[in-house]
Amino acid sequence: MSSTRDIETLIELMSRLPGLGPRSARRAVLHLIKKRDTQLLPLAQMLDQVGRSVRACLNCGNLSTDDICAICESEKRATGLICVVEDVADLWAMERAQVFDGRYHVLGGTLSPLDDIGPEDLHIPKLRDRIAAEAITEVILALNATVEGQTTAHYVAQELATTGVSISGLAQGVPIGGELDYLDDGTLRAALSARKAF
Amino acid sequence: MSSTRDIETLIELMSRLPGLGPRSARRAVLHLIKKRDTQLLPLAQMLDQVGRSVRACLNCGNLSTDDICAICESEKRATGLICVVEDVADLWAMERAQVFDGRYHVLGGTLSPLDDIGPEDLHIPKLRDRIAAEAITEVILALNATVEGQTTAHYVAQELATTGVSISGLAQGVPIGGELDYLDDGTLRAALSARKAF
Ligand SMILES: [Zn+2]
Ligand SMILES: [Zn+2]
Repeated sequence: MSSTRDIETLIELMSRLPGLGPRSARRAVLHLIKKRDTQLLPLAQMLDQVGRSVRACLNCGNLSTDDICAICESEKRATGLICVVEDVADLWAMERAQVFDGRYHVLGGTLSPLDDIGPEDLHIPKLRDRIAAEAITEVILALNATVEGQTTAHYVAQELATTGVSISGLAQGVPIGGELDYLDDGTLRAALSARKAF
Repeated sequence: MSSTRDIETLIELMSRLPGLGPRSARRAVLHLIKKRDTQLLPLAQMLDQVGRSVRACLNCGNLSTDDICAICESEKRATGLICVVEDVADLWAMERAQVFDGRYHVLGGTLSPLDDIGPEDLHIPKLRDRIAAEAITEVILALNATVEGQTTAHYVAQELATTGVSISGLAQGVPIGGELDYLDDGTLRAALSARKAF
Protein backbone atom coordinates (compact mmCIF):
# COMPACT_ATOMS: atom_id res chain seq x y z
CA MET A 1 0.00 0.00 0.00
CA SER A 2 2.80 2.41 0.85
CA SER A 3 4.15 2.07 -2.67
CA THR A 4 0.89 3.36 -4.11
CA ARG A 5 1.03 6.37 -1.83
CA ASP A 6 4.70 7.04 -2.67
CA ILE A 7 4.00 6.81 -6.38
CA GLU A 8 1.03 9.15 -5.99
CA THR A 9 3.17 11.62 -4.06
CA LEU A 10 5.78 11.40 -6.80
CA ILE A 11 3.16 12.03 -9.52
CA GLU A 12 1.84 14.97 -7.54
CA LEU A 13 5.35 16.48 -7.24
CA MET A 14 6.00 15.95 -10.96
CA SER A 15 2.64 17.46 -11.95
CA ARG A 16 3.67 20.76 -10.32
CA LEU A 17 6.44 21.22 -12.90
CA PRO A 18 5.68 23.83 -15.56
CA GLY A 19 4.35 22.16 -18.68
CA LEU A 20 3.33 18.90 -16.97
CA GLY A 21 -0.26 18.11 -15.98
CA PRO A 22 -1.52 15.10 -14.01
CA ARG A 23 -1.58 12.84 -17.07
CA SER A 24 1.88 13.68 -18.36
CA ALA A 25 3.20 13.44 -14.78
CA ARG A 26 1.81 9.88 -14.56
CA ARG A 27 3.42 8.99 -17.89
CA ALA A 28 6.72 10.50 -16.78
CA VAL A 29 6.70 8.56 -13.50
CA LEU A 30 5.91 5.26 -15.24
CA HIS A 31 8.66 5.99 -17.76
CA LEU A 32 11.12 6.63 -14.91
CA ILE A 33 10.13 3.47 -13.04
CA LYS A 34 10.66 1.43 -16.21
CA LYS A 35 14.10 3.01 -16.66
CA ARG A 36 15.04 2.79 -13.01
CA ASP A 37 18.80 2.40 -13.32
CA THR A 38 19.43 4.58 -16.37
CA GLN A 39 17.02 7.42 -15.62
CA LEU A 40 15.16 7.36 -12.30
CA LEU A 41 18.08 6.86 -9.92
CA PRO A 42 20.48 9.18 -11.86
CA LEU A 43 17.75 11.86 -11.86
CA ALA A 44 17.20 11.45 -8.11
CA GLN A 45 20.93 11.67 -7.49
CA MET A 46 21.49 14.70 -9.73
CA LEU A 47 18.49 16.56 -8.26
CA ASP A 48 19.89 15.97 -4.80
CA GLN A 49 23.37 17.09 -5.85
CA VAL A 50 22.14 20.25 -7.58
CA GLY A 51 19.71 20.99 -4.74
CA ARG A 52 22.47 20.80 -2.15
CA SER A 53 25.13 22.70 -4.07
CA VAL A 54 23.53 25.32 -6.31
CA ARG A 55 22.85 28.87 -5.10
CA ALA A 56 22.67 32.37 -6.54
CA CYS A 57 25.95 34.15 -7.35
CA LEU A 58 26.32 36.90 -4.75
CA ASN A 59 27.47 39.29 -7.47
CA CYS A 60 25.16 38.76 -10.44
CA GLY A 61 22.42 36.31 -9.40
CA ASN A 62 23.46 33.59 -11.88
CA LEU A 63 23.33 30.01 -10.56
CA SER A 64 26.55 28.68 -9.12
CA THR A 65 28.05 26.25 -6.63
CA ASP A 66 30.37 28.97 -5.40
CA ASP A 67 29.66 32.34 -3.85
CA ILE A 68 30.77 33.96 -7.09
CA CYS A 69 29.83 32.34 -10.42
CA ALA A 70 32.18 31.28 -13.21
CA ILE A 71 31.15 34.17 -15.47
CA CYS A 72 31.86 36.79 -12.79
CA GLU A 73 35.17 35.05 -11.96
CA SER A 74 36.30 34.62 -15.58
CA GLU A 75 39.17 36.83 -16.72
CA LYS A 76 38.15 36.29 -20.35
CA ARG A 77 34.96 38.31 -20.04
CA ALA A 78 34.85 41.88 -21.35
CA THR A 79 34.87 44.42 -18.53
CA GLY A 80 32.96 47.66 -18.17
CA LEU A 81 29.79 46.13 -19.59
CA ILE A 82 26.77 44.55 -17.87
CA CYS A 83 23.81 42.87 -19.53
CA VAL A 84 20.72 43.05 -17.31
CA VAL A 85 18.29 40.12 -17.66
CA GLU A 86 15.05 39.26 -15.97
CA ASP A 87 15.80 35.66 -15.14
CA VAL A 88 18.55 33.02 -15.21
CA ALA A 89 16.72 31.44 -18.18
CA ASP A 90 17.43 34.61 -20.17
CA LEU A 91 21.10 34.55 -19.15
CA TRP A 92 21.25 30.95 -20.42
CA ALA A 93 19.60 31.99 -23.70
CA MET A 94 22.24 34.72 -24.20
CA GLU A 95 25.05 32.28 -23.40
CA ARG A 96 23.67 29.64 -25.78
CA ALA A 97 23.53 32.24 -28.54
CA GLN A 98 27.14 33.24 -27.76
CA VAL A 99 26.32 36.84 -28.58
CA PHE A 100 27.64 38.60 -25.48
CA ASP A 101 30.98 38.32 -23.73
CA GLY A 102 30.54 40.75 -20.85
CA ARG A 103 29.00 39.99 -17.47
CA TYR A 104 25.35 39.75 -16.45
CA HIS A 105 23.02 40.98 -13.78
CA VAL A 106 19.89 38.95 -13.01
CA LEU A 107 17.05 41.12 -11.71
CA GLY A 108 15.07 38.14 -10.53
CA GLY A 109 11.76 39.22 -12.04
CA THR A 110 9.90 42.21 -13.40
CA LEU A 111 7.88 44.89 -11.68
CA SER A 112 4.34 43.60 -11.36
CA PRO A 113 1.95 45.46 -9.06
CA LEU A 114 -0.69 42.76 -9.55
CA ASP A 115 1.71 40.11 -8.26
CA ASP A 116 2.93 42.46 -5.53
CA ILE A 117 6.44 42.62 -7.00
CA GLY A 118 7.95 46.04 -6.39
CA PRO A 119 11.42 47.55 -6.91
CA GLU A 120 12.58 46.21 -3.53
CA ASP A 121 12.07 42.64 -4.81
CA LEU A 122 14.46 43.13 -7.75
CA HIS A 123 18.25 43.28 -7.36
CA ILE A 124 18.60 46.95 -8.36
CA PRO A 125 20.67 48.29 -5.43
CA LYS A 126 23.27 45.60 -6.09
CA LEU A 127 23.33 46.61 -9.77
CA ARG A 128 24.05 50.20 -8.72
CA ASP A 129 26.84 49.01 -6.42
CA ARG A 130 28.39 47.01 -9.27
CA ILE A 131 28.40 49.97 -11.65
CA ALA A 132 30.74 51.77 -9.24
CA ALA A 133 32.73 48.74 -8.06
CA GLU A 134 33.36 47.29 -11.53
CA ALA A 135 33.80 50.62 -13.34
CA ILE A 136 30.87 49.86 -15.65
CA THR A 137 30.37 52.25 -18.56
CA GLU A 138 27.52 50.53 -20.38
CA VAL A 139 24.41 48.71 -19.19
CA ILE A 140 22.36 46.74 -21.73
CA LEU A 141 18.78 46.17 -20.63
CA ALA A 142 17.98 42.80 -22.21
CA LEU A 143 14.50 42.48 -20.79
CA ASN A 144 11.59 40.74 -22.45
CA ALA A 145 9.61 42.75 -25.00
CA THR A 146 6.52 42.47 -22.81
CA VAL A 147 4.66 45.26 -21.02
CA GLU A 148 6.19 44.14 -17.69
CA GLY A 149 9.67 43.82 -19.19
CA GLN A 150 9.59 47.25 -20.77
CA THR A 151 8.06 48.90 -17.68
CA THR A 152 10.86 47.38 -15.64
CA ALA A 153 13.48 48.52 -18.18
CA HIS A 154 12.24 52.11 -17.91
CA TYR A 155 12.30 51.92 -14.12
CA VAL A 156 15.87 50.54 -14.05
CA ALA A 157 17.00 53.19 -16.55
CA GLN A 158 15.58 55.91 -14.28
CA GLU A 159 17.28 54.42 -11.23
CA LEU A 160 20.63 54.41 -13.03
CA ALA A 161 20.26 57.92 -14.49
CA THR A 162 22.45 59.52 -11.81
CA THR A 163 25.29 57.03 -12.35
CA GLY A 164 26.18 58.52 -15.72
CA VAL A 165 26.43 55.05 -17.27
CA SER A 166 25.38 54.59 -20.88
CA ILE A 167 22.13 52.58 -21.07
CA SER A 168 20.81 50.66 -24.09
CA GLY A 169 18.04 48.18 -24.79
CA LEU A 170 17.76 45.34 -27.30
CA ALA A 171 16.49 46.50 -30.69
CA GLN A 172 12.90 45.55 -31.46
CA GLY A 173 11.86 44.43 -34.89
CA VAL A 174 11.16 41.57 -37.24
CA PRO A 175 13.06 38.45 -36.14
CA ILE A 176 15.54 36.97 -38.63
CA GLY A 177 13.56 34.69 -40.91
CA GLY A 178 10.30 36.09 -39.56
CA GLU A 179 7.36 36.42 -41.93
CA LEU A 180 5.33 39.58 -41.59
CA ASP A 181 2.12 37.61 -41.91
CA TYR A 182 2.87 35.73 -38.68
CA LEU A 183 3.94 38.70 -36.55
CA ASP A 184 1.75 40.32 -33.97
CA ASP A 185 0.73 43.94 -34.48
CA GLY A 186 2.97 45.23 -31.70
CA THR A 187 6.09 43.77 -33.28
CA LEU A 188 5.14 45.12 -36.70
CA ARG A 189 4.48 48.56 -35.27
CA ALA A 190 7.82 48.58 -33.40
CA ALA A 191 9.68 47.36 -36.49
CA LEU A 192 8.09 50.05 -38.63
CA SER A 193 8.72 52.95 -36.26
CA ALA A 194 12.37 51.87 -35.76
CA ARG A 195 12.92 51.53 -39.53
CA LYS A 196 16.40 52.24 -40.84
CA ALA A 197 17.72 53.72 -44.09
CA PHE A 198 18.49 50.96 -46.59
CA MET B 1 32.15 25.33 -13.21
CA SER B 2 30.95 21.98 -11.87
CA SER B 3 27.56 23.50 -11.10
CA THR B 4 27.03 24.35 -14.75
CA ARG B 5 27.85 20.81 -15.74
CA ASP B 6 25.56 19.36 -13.05
CA ILE B 7 22.70 21.60 -14.11
CA GLU B 8 23.25 20.63 -17.74
CA THR B 9 23.23 16.94 -16.80
CA LEU B 10 20.01 17.51 -14.87
CA ILE B 11 18.40 19.28 -17.83
CA GLU B 12 19.49 16.45 -20.11
CA LEU B 13 17.95 13.84 -17.77
CA MET B 14 14.71 15.82 -17.52
CA SER B 15 14.51 16.33 -21.29
CA ARG B 16 14.35 12.54 -21.76
CA LEU B 17 10.97 12.41 -20.00
CA PRO B 18 8.01 11.92 -22.32
CA GLY B 19 6.39 15.26 -23.10
CA LEU B 20 9.41 17.38 -22.17
CA GLY B 21 11.81 18.85 -24.72
CA PRO B 22 15.05 20.74 -24.04
CA ARG B 23 13.26 24.04 -23.50
CA SER B 24 10.62 22.74 -21.09
CA ALA B 25 13.31 20.73 -19.30
CA ARG B 26 15.30 23.94 -18.74
CA ARG B 27 12.21 25.67 -17.42
CA ALA B 28 11.41 22.73 -15.14
CA VAL B 29 14.96 22.68 -13.71
CA LEU B 30 14.95 26.43 -13.04
CA HIS B 31 11.54 26.08 -11.41
CA LEU B 32 12.86 23.30 -9.18
CA ILE B 33 15.99 25.26 -8.20
CA LYS B 34 13.81 28.21 -7.22
CA LYS B 35 11.63 25.94 -5.09
CA ARG B 36 14.51 23.98 -3.63
CA ASP B 37 13.04 23.08 -0.26
CA THR B 38 9.42 22.60 -1.24
CA GLN B 39 9.88 20.87 -4.59
CA LEU B 40 13.42 19.97 -5.66
CA LEU B 41 14.60 18.14 -2.55
CA PRO B 42 11.23 16.40 -1.90
CA LEU B 43 11.23 15.25 -5.55
CA ALA B 44 14.81 13.96 -5.26
CA GLN B 45 13.94 12.12 -2.07
CA MET B 46 10.70 10.60 -3.40
CA LEU B 47 12.35 9.49 -6.66
CA ASP B 48 15.05 7.78 -4.65
CA GLN B 49 12.50 6.13 -2.37
CA VAL B 50 10.30 4.90 -5.22
CA GLY B 51 13.35 3.83 -7.24
CA ARG B 52 14.65 1.72 -4.38
CA SER B 53 11.36 0.17 -3.32
CA VAL B 54 9.07 -0.26 -6.32
CA ARG B 55 9.06 -3.42 -8.44
CA ALA B 56 6.62 -5.47 -10.49
CA CYS B 57 4.10 -7.68 -8.65
CA LEU B 58 5.20 -11.28 -9.25
CA ASN B 59 1.58 -12.28 -9.81
CA CYS B 60 0.03 -9.56 -11.99
CA GLY B 61 2.79 -7.13 -13.03
CA ASN B 62 1.29 -4.14 -11.18
CA LEU B 63 3.79 -1.89 -9.40
CA SER B 64 4.37 -2.69 -5.74
CA THR B 65 6.86 -2.49 -2.90
CA ASP B 66 6.12 -6.10 -2.05
CA ASP B 67 6.49 -9.29 -4.05
CA ILE B 68 2.69 -9.40 -4.35
CA CYS B 69 0.76 -6.15 -4.87
CA ALA B 70 -2.08 -4.77 -2.75
CA ILE B 71 -4.72 -5.61 -5.37
CA CYS B 72 -3.62 -9.25 -5.60
CA GLU B 73 -3.45 -9.47 -1.79
CA SER B 74 -6.80 -7.77 -1.14
CA GLU B 75 -9.62 -9.99 0.08
CA LYS B 76 -12.17 -7.43 -1.05
CA ARG B 77 -11.51 -8.03 -4.74
CA ALA B 78 -13.92 -10.19 -6.73
CA THR B 79 -12.44 -13.62 -7.51
CA GLY B 80 -12.65 -15.67 -10.68
CA LEU B 81 -12.20 -12.62 -12.89
CA ILE B 82 -9.06 -11.14 -14.48
CA CYS B 83 -8.84 -7.94 -16.48
CA VAL B 84 -5.88 -8.07 -18.89
CA VAL B 85 -4.25 -4.70 -19.62
CA GLU B 86 -1.34 -3.68 -21.76
CA ASP B 87 0.42 -1.47 -19.27
CA VAL B 88 0.37 -0.31 -15.65
CA ALA B 89 -0.96 3.06 -16.91
CA ASP B 90 -4.08 1.25 -18.10
CA LEU B 91 -4.46 -0.51 -14.76
CA TRP B 92 -4.28 2.91 -13.09
CA ALA B 93 -6.89 4.27 -15.50
CA MET B 94 -9.26 1.40 -14.58
CA GLU B 95 -8.64 1.95 -10.88
CA ARG B 96 -9.20 5.71 -11.13
CA ALA B 97 -12.50 5.09 -12.87
CA GLN B 98 -13.44 2.59 -10.11
CA VAL B 99 -15.24 0.43 -12.65
CA PHE B 100 -13.68 -2.96 -11.93
CA ASP B 101 -13.28 -4.83 -8.67
CA GLY B 102 -11.56 -8.00 -9.83
CA ARG B 103 -7.83 -8.50 -10.29
CA TYR B 104 -5.59 -7.52 -13.20
CA HIS B 105 -2.91 -8.98 -15.41
CA VAL B 106 -0.41 -6.61 -16.99
CA LEU B 107 0.89 -7.95 -20.32
CA GLY B 108 3.73 -5.44 -20.42
CA GLY B 109 3.19 -4.39 -24.03
CA THR B 110 1.55 -5.45 -27.27
CA LEU B 111 2.75 -7.69 -30.06
CA SER B 112 4.74 -5.56 -32.44
CA PRO B 113 6.86 -7.30 -35.08
CA LEU B 114 8.35 -3.94 -36.11
CA ASP B 115 9.63 -3.34 -32.57
CA ASP B 116 10.66 -6.99 -32.27
CA ILE B 117 8.12 -7.66 -29.50
CA GLY B 118 6.85 -11.22 -29.77
CA PRO B 119 4.62 -13.40 -27.56
CA GLU B 120 7.61 -14.39 -25.41
CA ASP B 121 8.01 -10.74 -24.35
CA LEU B 122 4.47 -10.55 -22.93
CA HIS B 123 3.41 -12.22 -19.68
CA ILE B 124 1.07 -14.74 -21.28
CA PRO B 125 2.37 -17.99 -19.70
CA LYS B 126 1.90 -16.45 -16.25
CA LEU B 127 -1.67 -15.51 -17.23
CA ARG B 128 -2.35 -19.11 -18.17
CA ASP B 129 -0.93 -20.29 -14.85
CA ARG B 130 -3.17 -17.87 -12.99
CA ILE B 131 -6.32 -19.06 -14.74
CA ALA B 132 -5.72 -22.50 -13.22
CA ALA B 133 -4.29 -21.39 -9.87
CA GLU B 134 -6.97 -18.76 -9.14
CA ALA B 135 -9.91 -20.70 -10.63
CA ILE B 136 -10.58 -17.93 -13.13
CA THR B 137 -13.78 -18.23 -15.13
CA GLU B 138 -13.70 -14.95 -17.03
CA VAL B 139 -10.90 -12.98 -18.67
CA ILE B 140 -11.64 -9.44 -19.87
CA LEU B 141 -9.21 -8.25 -22.55
CA ALA B 142 -9.06 -4.50 -21.84
CA LEU B 143 -6.49 -3.69 -24.50
CA ASN B 144 -6.24 -0.45 -26.42
CA ALA B 145 -8.48 -0.11 -29.48
CA THR B 146 -5.42 0.19 -31.68
CA VAL B 147 -4.27 -2.26 -34.34
CA GLU B 148 -1.52 -3.56 -32.01
CA GLY B 149 -3.92 -3.81 -29.08
CA GLN B 150 -6.53 -5.75 -31.02
CA THR B 151 -3.96 -8.01 -32.69
CA THR B 152 -2.63 -8.82 -29.23
CA ALA B 153 -6.16 -9.41 -27.90
CA HIS B 154 -6.81 -11.95 -30.65
CA TYR B 155 -3.50 -13.67 -29.95
CA VAL B 156 -4.21 -13.88 -26.19
CA ALA B 157 -7.74 -15.18 -26.87
CA GLN B 158 -6.27 -17.93 -29.07
CA GLU B 159 -3.69 -18.82 -26.43
CA LEU B 160 -6.43 -19.14 -23.80
CA ALA B 161 -8.87 -21.07 -26.00
CA THR B 162 -7.91 -24.44 -24.49
CA THR B 163 -8.44 -23.24 -20.90
CA GLY B 164 -12.22 -23.09 -21.35
CA VAL B 165 -12.35 -19.69 -19.69
CA SER B 166 -14.91 -17.17 -20.92
CA ILE B 167 -13.17 -14.34 -22.78
CA SER B 168 -14.58 -10.87 -23.43
CA GLY B 169 -13.29 -7.61 -24.77
CA LEU B 170 -14.30 -4.04 -23.96
CA ALA B 171 -17.37 -2.95 -25.90
CA GLN B 172 -17.24 -0.62 -28.85
CA GLY B 173 -17.60 2.80 -27.41
CA VAL B 174 -13.89 2.97 -26.99
CA PRO B 175 -13.15 5.20 -29.98
CA ILE B 176 -11.18 3.66 -32.84
CA GLY B 177 -7.53 4.42 -32.26
CA GLY B 178 -8.28 5.52 -28.70
CA GLU B 179 -6.03 4.71 -25.77
CA LEU B 180 -7.57 3.79 -22.43
CA ASP B 181 -5.44 6.23 -20.55
CA TYR B 182 -7.13 9.13 -22.41
CA LEU B 183 -10.72 8.12 -21.72
CA ASP B 184 -13.10 9.66 -19.23
CA ASP B 185 -14.53 7.47 -16.48
CA GLY B 186 -18.01 7.32 -18.02
CA THR B 187 -16.76 5.97 -21.33
CA LEU B 188 -14.67 3.37 -19.57
CA ARG B 189 -17.61 2.32 -17.39
CA ALA B 190 -19.96 2.02 -20.38
CA ALA B 191 -17.42 0.07 -22.39
CA LEU B 192 -16.81 -2.31 -19.50
CA SER B 193 -20.45 -2.98 -18.63
CA ALA B 194 -21.32 -3.61 -22.32
CA ARG B 195 -18.40 -5.98 -22.84
CA LYS B 196 -18.99 -8.72 -25.41
CA ALA B 197 -17.92 -12.32 -25.75
CA PHE B 198 -14.74 -12.49 -27.76
ZN1 LIG C 1 28.01 35.95 -11.13
ZN1 LIG D 1 -0.49 -8.02 -8.30
